[in-house]
Amino acid sequence: MRNMIIASTSTIYGSGYLEYLTPVLSKRLNAAGISEVLFIPFARPGGITHDEYTSKAAKAFEKLDVSVQGIHTFQNPGEAIEKATAIFTGGGNTFQLVKMLHDLELMMPLRKAIYNGCFYLGTSAGSNICGLNMKTTNDMPVVEPQSFKTTGAIGYNINAHYQDPIENDTHMGETREERIKEFHVYNSITVVGLREGSYIDVNGSEEILQGPHQARIFRSNTENQEVDPGFNFATL
Amino acid sequence: MRNMIIASTSTIYGSGYLEYLTPVLSKRLNAAGISEVLFIPFARPGGITHDEYTSKAAKAFEKLDVSVQGIHTFQNPGEAIEKATAIFTGGGNTFQLVKMLHDLELMMPLRKAIYNGCFYLGTSAGSNICGLNMKTTNDMPVVEPQSFKTTGAIGYNINAHYQDPIENDTHMGETREERIKEFHVYNSITVVGLREGSYIDVNGSEEILQGPHQARIFRSNTENQEVDPGFNFATL
Repeated sequence: MRNMIIASTSTIYGSGYLEYLTPVLSKRLNAAGISEVLFIPFARPGGITHDEYTSKAAKAFEKLDVSVQGIHTFQNPGEAIEKATAIFTGGGNTFQLVKMLHDLELMMPLRKAIYNGCFYLGTSAGSNICGLNMKTTNDMPVVEPQSFKTTGAIGYNINAHYQDPIENDTHMGETREERIKEFHVYNSITVVGLREGSYIDVNGSEEILQGPHQARIFRSNTENQEVDPGFNFATL
Repeated sequence: MRNMIIASTSTIYGSGYLEYLTPVLSKRLNAAGISEVLFIPFARPGGITHDEYTSKAAKAFEKLDVSVQGIHTFQNPGEAIEKATAIFTGGGNTFQLVKMLHDLELMMPLRKAIYNGCFYLGTSAGSNICGLNMKTTNDMPVVEPQSFKTTGAIGYNINAHYQDPIENDTHMGETREERIKEFHVYNSITVVGLREGSYIDVNGSEEILQGPHQARIFRSNTENQEVDPGFNFATL
């Protein structure tokens, strides 16, 4: 049974790395007696190294008395995923993350681990890979993955860091909503726009919106819909 | 010899479609005695149809006494590119544009036509394909092209609709500059950030910045550089 936290962002404005998630993480990790997390640093935000990124994650988990090991330090990363009781995939560039997961043939082992009940925390790019494909990422395609397919741990796509249109904006680039509308010209998959501070708490068959904000649901050929915290996305 | 206008955007705030480019287009098309433009509508902004998009382009070129034909109306689009004296590729979604060009095997014919002296106008996505690859697009990867390679009609990449960081922004998503920095973790290609209203006027071996704004040059492992209108990018 699935046990996941799928967060829009690792960090909310004016707060430390993973700080706003500490209460829920503490509860979930302690409840399951987890003292070790396998970290997937492949998204490399700002191009930092796997070691640097793992140190950053380790520092945040230290407060929870949980140790962190980077997947890049294992000779057999597939086995590391299989054996893990908790996995955290950090944010950064989704293209680079997905490229690495496909190159190392880790996408399906990751899916399998999640469905086998391994606790999974995703933030930003790490949440994008919970959906069916990475076609609703906001990231720049700085590298070319062999496929855009992701784990399908949930039955819809995430748009992380969802932003409402900026009023009176003079910039002519597309708004986030316009981009997702373009996605639906070519795809019928439902998209959940998660605002920064929101996360989806997946517990078995429930997928509940948590955090202070509403989320925006985009469906093909249907009006967009705002849903309140407590909404169960499994009903989609 | 190349004869191109590579524009950041089709439309500047408060102005009509292609309106700010009318003087330069009028000059260049009249000088070459061009009365017909082949339009590539594949980027489909907002998912509009090829016909709708071609009508929009035709309306803008009407004022210049130039007729527009959509490439999708030709039985042999490769031949249409080969025979064209002027080609315009409109903006929209770069992934969809690049997918279509590769699926129809038109990327190299387009490159060849440009180097043979066919006048080329690109706006936004249509400018992105002038670079070496599409890895610096801002667009959402709504479809999966078979390759990210583009025409290489210029020896660097474009970042269209370039935006400076917004001061005091509380949003935690990456700035444009941070995204291009991530591109340079994995690529050494130089990137030109073109602000809306700027365009590159390519005339033979010269590639001159035109319009009211500076452009921002991003090189791998070098400080970013602002250059003034009149700068020749061929020196990069």
